[in-house]
Amino acid sequence: MKNNIVVQKYGGTSIGDVDKLKLIAKKIVDKKLEGFSPVVVVSAMGKTTDELVEMSEKVTFNQIEPDPREKDTLLSTGELVSATLLAMSIKSLGQEVISLSGPQAGIFTDHIHGSARISDINIERMINEINKNKILIIAGFQGINTEGDITTLGRGGSDTTAVALAAALNAKVCEIFTDVEGIYTTDPRIVSKARKINFINYEDMLEMAVLGAKMHPRSIELASVYNVPVYVAGTFSKSKGTLIIKGDNMENNKTVTGIAIDKNVSKITIKKIKNKPGTAGSILRPLSDQSISIDIIVQNIPMDGFIDFSFSVSNDDLQRAYDILMNQKNLDFEDIIKGSGFAKISLVGTGMQNAPGYATEMFTALGGVNIDIEMITTSEIRITCLINENHVNSAVNVLHSKFDLDKE
Amino acid sequence: MKNNIVVQKYGGTSIGDVDKLKLIAKKIVDKKLEGFSPVVVVSAMGKTTDELVEMSEKVTFNQIEPDPREKDTLLSTGELVSATLLAMSIKSLGQEVISLSGPQAGIFTDHIHGSARISDINIERMINEINKNKILIIAGFQGINTEGDITTLGRGGSDTTAVALAAALNAKVCEIFTDVEGIYTTDPRIVSKARKINFINYEDMLEMAVLGAKMHPRSIELASVYNVPVYVAGTFSKSKGTLIIKGDNMENNKTVTGIAIDKNVSKITIKKIKNKPGTAGSILRPLSDQSISIDIIVQNIPMDGFIDFSFSVSNDDLQRAYDILMNQKNLDFEDIIKGSGFAKISLVGTGMQNAPGYATEMFTALGGVNIDIEMITTSEIRITCLINENHVNSAVNVLHSKFDLDKE
Repeated sequence: MKNNIVVQKYGGTSIGDVDKLKLIAKKIVDKKLEGFSPVVVVSAMGKTTDELVEMSEKVTFNQIEPDPREKDTLLSTGELVSATLLAMSIKSLGQEVISLSGPQAGIFTDHIHGSARISDINIERMINEINKNKILIIAGFQGINTEGDITTLGRGGSDTTAVALAAALNAKVCEIFTDVEGIYTTDPRIVSKARKINFINYEDMLEMAVLGAKMHPRSIELASVYNVPVYVAGTFSKSKGTLIIKGDNMENNKTVTGIAIDKNVSKITIKKIKNKPGTAGSILRPLSDQSISIDIIVQNIPMDGFIDFSFSVSNDDLQRAYDILMNQKNLDFEDIIKGSGFAKISLVGTGMQNAPGYATEMFTALGGVNIDIEMITTSEIRITCLINENHVNSAVNVLHSKFDLDKE
Repeated sequence: MKNNIVVQKYGGTSIGDVDKLKLIAKKIVDKKLEGFSPVVVVSAMGKTTDELVEMSEKVTFNQIEPDPREKDTLLSTGELVSATLLAMSIKSLGQEVISLSGPQAGIFTDHIHGSARISDINIERMINEINKNKILIIAGFQGINTEGDITTLGRGGSDTTAVALAAALNAKVCEIFTDVEGIYTTDPRIVSKARKINFINYEDMLEMAVLGAKMHPRSIELASVYNVPVYVAGTFSKSKGTLIIKGDNMENNKTVTGIAIDKNVSKITIKKIKNKPGTAGSILRPLSDQSISIDIIVQNIPMDGFIDFSFSVSNDDLQRAYDILMNQKNLDFEDIIKGSGFAKISLVGTGMQNAPGYATEMFTALGGVNIDIEMITTSEIRITCLINENHVNSAVNVLHSKFDLDKE
């Protein structure tokens, strides 16, 4: 299918008020006048979603959690509001346009309210409307399940909608407009010499996802699977953004692409647990059953048939993970220690795969500025160290310079 | 079908804030615990709809009217918010409950955005959910057309939804909860002796619809056609409301049921228009083509082949009606005079049908307090006089007393 479809996504801050929304309307019309068929995915305006969540918590009795099905329909109204307002604004500029809710756009999902996954996209209506020369404005973050109920896609939902639509519609590119100007070698607030990256491949972007652009790994994975080129840029900025594409088009052969930072990390250690086959599984299963993601795992050498077992979780999940483990009657341990205030520093780069010695250099550099490494984990394209949160600035600055990221 | 379904409708002021919404939730649960199956229709909370309308007017360029299709989806979110919040609140009280949007409730309409008419209701899902012992919370005022687009029902939309659902579900009664305690013999703010009516028939209620309860004539017509008993009462009041039912169950044989007042009236007079067959039609057709309702029509006796032709319209339509008529090239007249500041006073009562002389008594009573009658129109159950707005208070007080409405 040959077409001129460009998917664009605007986040909540980009359409935070009426004036911004009208600026976006003009930007979209400009794209149309350049000969493209814009399919625009929007989030809810500004703080709308937060306000709806707050209301949902106030209306229940005895502080009972709001029903997830009802909450999904409630939250989905935020995107409907911004989508219809944006469509009206564009229409008043004399362009043909139509807003579509998730269900109207044919976005089908599974039944998991609050974090549904897209199962299928029926593009029929979208194609019909595009063929009528209309700009499409799609309410992001939402879909419909087989019972006809509204679902929401959870964190990063609108990015996921945008990439999924770009894949389904075979769009030229998926443009993600946000409040940062692109992907940087590392957080510019921490390293003054951080540089914007022009091109990055999906694998490296996945690892870097925690940085400024805040694109959810989920949407990048999807882009990678369907080979959708994703362009991340500032909504109201004239400067070039970052293009995320397949690996064989890289601009340079630098082995390290960037340094990812995640400050939202806690650590749990189970002291003196009996070491037998299946111990790790019986520790982690009750956590994964409750959708708690475990990240770095360290198990020390057995002593007298016992081990210490440590892992990292996000700060948000720390207390819940701790409570779940304390209530596991079948686990026989001496104690569980929990602590927060940690950060993960990751050296990221597809190029590191065939170049040994990066880990050594990283540890040496951190040791040179007296930083203790609490935990280590590596993948083919990433080396991650867990360190004390207070050491993040000096750690990242020394690594940024050490691995030549300061230079063009 | 034998069932215990009771449809209830709560207006925007009844759920104006979180505390009121929680009170309503308890009220609904009480109804359920009494053994009924509540199907609850809600409007948008408080001023939500007004706020959405205001936003829609701000986002367009050059003060262009917001696109009606987009506006309908935008406005429909107000009812989705209140419906889902109410469902969450009820759920937290331990009751099974589900919110349904207009489309989910199977409410199909025609394509006229902003004032759609219900064409069909597919009750399948509602019945399924009721059979699962669930309380239903339905977003009022909205439906879906055959293209899968959201429509809204316009003024009185949620009342119409409630009555239509009561008819489709064969409910025992349709309870309309509002900020007044029922239907009164006339406006209690104008006549201190105005009394609440216990029972009223559909025909009289239709004529009285402009009074306090503000039920739209449309919903009453629908109730009449499908013989749905409608109970109008105060949301937070313990006192009995008014039951609207078929005529043969009336409590009393009073010939005059009440006095309706409509202050929103203007008058247009076309001076010296050529009198020939079809004149009235050619005056009124261009107005009805633009959805302008004409009410009282007076045509004087022809003089030298010319007539003066007068009619009343609502204040809102005055300027538009005037402009349309001035632009009718095929109409040959001397001048058009427009004026506002009028009110309609209507004596209403099915009982008047077989009792002559009411008109005479009404005109005499008004003449007795020096009130000029500008126009007159009558139906079998109503006598209406157009008078100067400034005379409303004295006119209604004298009539209320004259026709024994002061007494129980």
